[in-house]
Amino acid sequence: MHFVSALPLQSGASLRDYDLSFETYGQLNAAKSNAVLVCHALNASHHVAGVYEGQPKSEGWWDNMIGPGKPLDTNQFFVIGVNNLGSCFGSTGPMHINPDTGQVYGADFPVVTVEDWVNAQARLLDVLGIQTLAAVMGGSLGGMQTLSWTLQYPQRVRHALVIASAPNLTAENIAFNEVARRAIVTDPDFHGGHFYQRGTIPKRGLRIARMIGHITYLSDDVMNEKFGRQLRTAVLAQAQDASVSLDAGQYKYSTQEVEFQIESYLRYQGDKFAEYFDANTYLLITRALDYFDPARAYGGDLSLALGRATAKFLLVSFTTDWRFSPKRSREIVKALLDNKRDVSYAEIDAPHGHDAFLLDDPRYTGVVRSYFESILQSLEGQP
Amino acid sequence: MHFVSALPLQSGASLRDYDLSFETYGQLNAAKSNAVLVCHALNASHHVAGVYEGQPKSEGWWDNMIGPGKPLDTNQFFVIGVNNLGSCFGSTGPMHINPDTGQVYGADFPVVTVEDWVNAQARLLDVLGIQTLAAVMGGSLGGMQTLSWTLQYPQRVRHALVIASAPNLTAENIAFNEVARRAIVTDPDFHGGHFYQRGTIPKRGLRIARMIGHITYLSDDVMNEKFGRQLRTAVLAQAQDASVSLDAGQYKYSTQEVEFQIESYLRYQGDKFAEYFDANTYLLITRALDYFDPARAYGGDLSLALGRATAKFLLVSFTTDWRFSPKRSREIVKALLDNKRDVSYAEIDAPHGHDAFLLDDPRYTGVVRSYFESILQSLEGQP
Repeated sequence: MHFVSALPLQSGASLRDYDLSFETYGQLNAAKSNAVLVCHALNASHHVAGVYEGQPKSEGWWDNMIGPGKPLDTNQFFVIGVNNLGSCFGSTGPMHINPDTGQVYGADFPVVTVEDWVNAQARLLDVLGIQTLAAVMGGSLGGMQTLSWTLQYPQRVRHALVIASAPNLTAENIAFNEVARRAIVTDPDFHGGHFYQRGTIPKRGLRIARMIGHITYLSDDVMNEKFGRQLRTAVLAQAQDASVSLDAGQYKYSTQEVEFQIESYLRYQGDKFAEYFDANTYLLITRALDYFDPARAYGGDLSLALGRATAKFLLVSFTTDWRFSPKRSREIVKALLDNKRDVSYAEIDAPHGHDAFLLDDPRYTGVVRSYFESILQSLEGQP
Repeated sequence: MHFVSALPLQSGASLRDYDLSFETYGQLNAAKSNAVLVCHALNASHHVAGVYEGQPKSEGWWDNMIGPGKPLDTNQFFVIGVNNLGSCFGSTGPMHINPDTGQVYGADFPVVTVEDWVNAQARLLDVLGIQTLAAVMGGSLGGMQTLSWTLQYPQRVRHALVIASAPNLTAENIAFNEVARRAIVTDPDFHGGHFYQRGTIPKRGLRIARMIGHITYLSDDVMNEKFGRQLRTAVLAQAQDASVSLDAGQYKYSTQEVEFQIESYLRYQGDKFAEYFDANTYLLITRALDYFDPARAYGGDLSLALGRATAKFLLVSFTTDWRFSPKRSREIVKALLDNKRDVSYAEIDAPHGHDAFLLDDPRYTGVVRSYFESILQSLEGQP
């Protein structure tokens, strides 16, 4: 969808005109009351569910949660996924042409915030003729967008599902983002963010950024369970790779070669990510995370800040998520209860760390399913 | 101290000849029974206490713990600090000349392990005429050396003080080390570890490595308390820096500039470290951490592995240390108790994360002081 009227941004800048990529699933009912907006996190897009024709491996990033008969049932709900501005998966972003200069934006793409994304999503809904959402749903950074929807457009959101999220980043969260950004920005191939013209990609920095990210997505427990102190050679030997020497399982005593399986995993994840993710997008999205802080305008008082929200809420957190710990979700729950809002909260005892919000835990998916069933009943009960 | 006989290493390589830098404090008694060896961690040296003449800011890294009248009282004990092989603070390391080639070692410096360091320390004690240590003491990686002393030279150690340490690294620990190493190794100025000849220093990588390290040394709580979400401009304005604009406390909306105070702190720490620390040393020391695993030769059974130890033990851990958590110290305590060893264990409720072992917590320093007092009494009670 192309938008020709400028979008004013929180920074004071604006985007003169821009595109938003989006996908929809299911049917909008006659009352236009069954729309659910799904917001994405760092490394995801508008492609939330299903596969593209002839591409059996193109499952959407939340395909286990969204689809016909799934917890968010597209036989009942009209689901909308929107790629956020500044991303590298279709919507206008740093690798597109700045209409003011005729050059690729690069590092000149304006800083966008969670609030800006929500405004852009709201404009898209206007065009689609959807005034009120049955629900907004998101995990992690997507949960921040969901929370922001209830504050920026309280009358347009009936239910908010805020999963594995937080009311803002802690100093430690910001610190991890900053190290990742420094790795990218100080990569000689970054060229101040104008690497497209140079024909380079700051892959070294992107790899480091992704490796750091991966560590924070997983719990210590699940890392020990999946990798522990297993040596790479031992794993290859188990897989009966004929090229593995008889020394399998012995230390190589090397500082630069892969020794442990966890190293192999992280290097692989870093390499893969550096092939497709845009460095400027990484900076923009991590900054949007850093800046999000609805209590900031209220002297840090989250209860005051959430007073504007009128939606009903489901919050879900995961016990081993140390990136966005249950404590942070409980802060939101408390602030909503201080405002006497309708809040359900599930704290799932899951071993998978932050990644748990993308995985299939039957207690988790069961809670989401039940919540959407109750939303459906309330829709049917409407005049 | 120069050593002319080759030191065989665990890897199978050996160091033909080498120097060890060391310092001593206090007086060795006539019975040579009051010697205490203090082992250092990643970013430290043989200079454990005191200041150099005319250099009032040159305090040793454990100066709060070691000195006249301090918990480890140098009026009573003869304290020895040794710089480990591969370090960049005096002992033979990667920036020294390889006698076999006449060239700087660089990346060709052999991989050294905790066990190798202990062997080198034992040789130094031989030359000093010290057969038995009243105690070995160390925090973090220094605690690993302490534990290894009790296994490699059980008859030479009466007491072992293992502080904020672990019986091996977890997958997450190794993962953080690996990201830091990749940042260094992929820095174009690293040149495969032979950067000395090129006149370059891989400062970008060292900065990233140090920033990652710092995050893991601190607890989430203490980071929130010290930095929280404070903006750099607000901190500067509080310090009444005249160059700060009226926008102090407002977001700059920038992805590359310093916005939050935690970013400023981490960048400063990274810059400082990159000025003095050697990149090859960083690789070697983190690898020594990765490889340490006394239970490995016993099928992972730590109780079997620690059966060789005959020393008495004090273990100390800190509740908010997520790098070497109390759980890891308790594993050592349990394994020692399985062998019916004499073990004291203090789990200190401290907010400072892994860094706590270097800080002044009166409950912590009090425990160490009492332990050394009891060692002193046992020495005096000796024939």
